[in-house]
Amino acid sequence: MSRGAADPPVVRSCLVVGTGLIGTSVALALRRHDVVVHLADRDPAAARQAAELGAGTVDPPTEQVDLAVVAVSPSATAEVVSGLLAGNVAATVVDTAAVKAGVLRQVAATVGPAPHFVGTHPMAGRERSGPGAARADLFEGRPWAVSAQGADERSMTRVRALLDMCGAVVVEMDAPAHDAAVALVSHVPQVAASLVAARLAEGADNALALTGQGLRDVTRVAASDPDLWVDILTANAEPVARILTELRQDVDAVVHALREVDEDPEWARTALREVLLRGNAGRARLPGKHGGRSTTYALVPVVLPDRPGELGRLFVDVGAVGVNIEDIRIEHSPGQPVGLVELAVAPAAASGLATALAGLGWVVHPEGA
Amino acid sequence: MSRGAADPPVVRSCLVVGTGLIGTSVALALRRHDVVVHLADRDPAAARQAAELGAGTVDPPTEQVDLAVVAVSPSATAEVVSGLLAGNVAATVVDTAAVKAGVLRQVAATVGPAPHFVGTHPMAGRERSGPGAARADLFEGRPWAVSAQGADERSMTRVRALLDMCGAVVVEMDAPAHDAAVALVSHVPQVAASLVAARLAEGADNALALTGQGLRDVTRVAASDPDLWVDILTANAEPVARILTELRQDVDAVVHALREVDEDPEWARTALREVLLRGNAGRARLPGKHGGRSTTYALVPVVLPDRPGELGRLFVDVGAVGVNIEDIRIEHSPGQPVGLVELAVAPAAASGLATALAGLGWVVHPEGA
Repeated sequence: MSRGAADPPVVRSCLVVGTGLIGTSVALALRRHDVVVHLADRDPAAARQAAELGAGTVDPPTEQVDLAVVAVSPSATAEVVSGLLAGNVAATVVDTAAVKAGVLRQVAATVGPAPHFVGTHPMAGRERSGPGAARADLFEGRPWAVSAQGADERSMTRVRALLDMCGAVVVEMDAPAHDAAVALVSHVPQVAASLVAARLAEGADNALALTGQGLRDVTRVAASDPDLWVDILTANAEPVARILTELRQDVDAVVHALREVDEDPEWARTALREVLLRGNAGRARLPGKHGGRSTTYALVPVVLPDRPGELGRLFVDVGAVGVNIEDIRIEHSPGQPVGLVELAVAPAAASGLATALAGLGWVVHPEGA
Repeated sequence: MSRGAADPPVVRSCLVVGTGLIGTSVALALRRHDVVVHLADRDPAAARQAAELGAGTVDPPTEQVDLAVVAVSPSATAEVVSGLLAGNVAATVVDTAAVKAGVLRQVAATVGPAPHFVGTHPMAGRERSGPGAARADLFEGRPWAVSAQGADERSMTRVRALLDMCGAVVVEMDAPAHDAAVALVSHVPQVAASLVAARLAEGADNALALTGQGLRDVTRVAASDPDLWVDILTANAEPVARILTELRQDVDAVVHALREVDEDPEWARTALREVLLRGNAGRARLPGKHGGRSTTYALVPVVLPDRPGELGRLFVDVGAVGVNIEDIRIEHSPGQPVGLVELAVAPAAASGLATALAGLGWVVHPEGA
């Protein structure tokens, strides 16, 4: 499926339209494979900035390119794709918008059947945007959805070569399934994070002094760009509204149970427990690091004095011990110059690492969790 | 305020009732300061396990202890506190329940004015529970709320000594303010995470293949213990229901806007944008690492091949460069053996670190974000 890079190159030239985070990151990845990349943006300064970062040239192509990658806002995507197809600017055109069914429908309505167009969606957003936040490795190991319907085989070959050069994982899904999936795993979580964070906008100052890691995690994506998300949510309105309506029914059930705590405590507790158990079950379905179900690692917690060089010193010591670290989490607390570093390792390696670090003078929880 | 440890010890003996995560962690912290700790639990095996972990003795005290720490489930807290006060078992009794007003009210109703009782709440839960998950440093640098009302000065001195030995940060709040605060920063975010995760319980398998870091973060706390959370939510029913009702109004507004996208797109976009902007504003209020507003660090992204020892090798190299790392994030993707490590450093240090690591053979984004 992703043998493109081993064959003679099927993508030697590319036009990237829209040099924000996604477009510039695609361009940087293609430049690493010596593809000739032309950069265009409605804001010429953004295209120039991308060019200065090594993403390609702002000179327009003088002949048909092998591939055009459209990475403009979701609401402008169908129009730009249709123009490129009508002008025969590229042998194959792909878009990268976060919502697929509407784009495919609008393109078909404008230019008719479009065998040279493939709808795609890289799952690699960030809280930051613009060419300055772009990186050649943004898509490395990330899922990249491809909605193949109607595309011819040569165009699919170019799309596979694109994803291969970006290091992404192909996930083929038709457009309605894709849009329902991202509503579930991305758009509704974004709305929920924003709504929880919105409550904090009016909270008392000293209430926020009790903030813990849980709130930080739940609200992290609430820092995202509102204009981009207005575009995404309006383009996927029906699937998002459907899931939010289900979520609202659960909110109602929780509120109802909380209002009945004094009247009928046993019923209220059962109702709350049922919702929390469904949350446990859903969380347990998230894929783990290597595509399987979540793996349980043992955590080795290490207390880290917040002096310059302490984390570097820990790095040196962990490196010397030679245990493979699967994940790291640093917990911060407001107002206190100390941190707790949790090193996630294979369960069999935990006690050895804990003992070795303790022997080197680190404060490590002796039981290794 | 936290001079207790420098004075002659005011807490030489302690009875910990409830040897779960919180009680055992308190006991371990006090043992580090040579306090004599007695351990009790309705489940004798849990108390024995805590004792085996070095948290104290299961022998009951033979005379009045200086301090009793009640760390049982929220619903059992008032009863246990009242019993200890009535039996004059300790000079001072503190509880650690996540909700305060109900406990204070129930204790007052049972034993009358209680100058030897102080309601407290350490902000240090975990997704794991039980004595095996306990650690002496669980409270290090974490906020620990204290509701002082009605307590005499000698009891407050003992409480400050307790928090000092645990390394916690005292946050004084009266009980209603505390309960409103934790509803906002802990209980409602927990419900929201559970409700988003609950949607995943029924989602299509291939939808979850598109899971990104955002969903992982939003739903992390949804893995928490349902029984504990039923207790917490029912004990803080009114404040949680009030905030959830506000949140539900915003859900309704979002659903309404999404349903009107075709009819009145400009109005719908404005309504969605307003909610997302409030989310931005609330998120920006979270305290940063050292108690101030969130600090912006520069991120240096490094591509990490998932071979044994690669992270250790990175540790050694970062240690050798000698830059102070403020935070680390490892992004995982399902199905792909590679990770991206983001090292957060002071903005002035970013380009030097990126250059040094690139020189050592690491794939580093050249612009340093």
